[in-house]
Amino acid sequence: MREQTLKAFGQEVRYWRAERRLSQEELADQCGFHRTYIGQIERGERNPSLLNILTLCRHLGISLSEFFTRYETVLGTFA
Amino acid sequence: MREQTLKAFGQEVRYWRAERRLSQEELADQCGFHRTYIGQIERGERNPSLLNILTLCRHLGISLSEFFTRYETVLGTFA
Repeated sequence: MREQTLKAFGQEVRYWRAERRLSQEELADQCGFHRTYIGQIERGERNPSLLNILTLCRHLGISLSEFFTRYETVLGTFA
Repeated sequence: MREQTLKAFGQEVRYWRAERRLSQEELADQCGFHRTYIGQIERGERNPSLLNILTLCRHLGISLSEFFTRYETVLGTFA
């Protein structure tokens, strides 16, 4: 479940990043993250914190609820 | 912003925990967390990870999107 959860989260970040036509490095710079952090998140290798999730959503221009509504549809699980 | 974000998150956990009539210790036990962790979260002293947020929501019986929709209303900010 852990891996599936983190992978699904990563895919959603990738989805929104592509929607915004941002590279991983551009998004990392905007968020103030190390430039490899976005790639690690997208591959499901990281378990991001609330503050980092909020920073990501802010720079992807979406609300947390919008992000997690789609995330849960993709993950197909009720939390 | 950091403190406000974590405090608002903690207040939401407290709101839902009270809705479910659970003590901090009961919720911690159900989630498999240390029994002081819930109190720390509710006081805004912790920056929980995605997996811990999902575990909390699962044991509070709400979806992530439901949780963050209310959270954003309370926080009054668009992510």
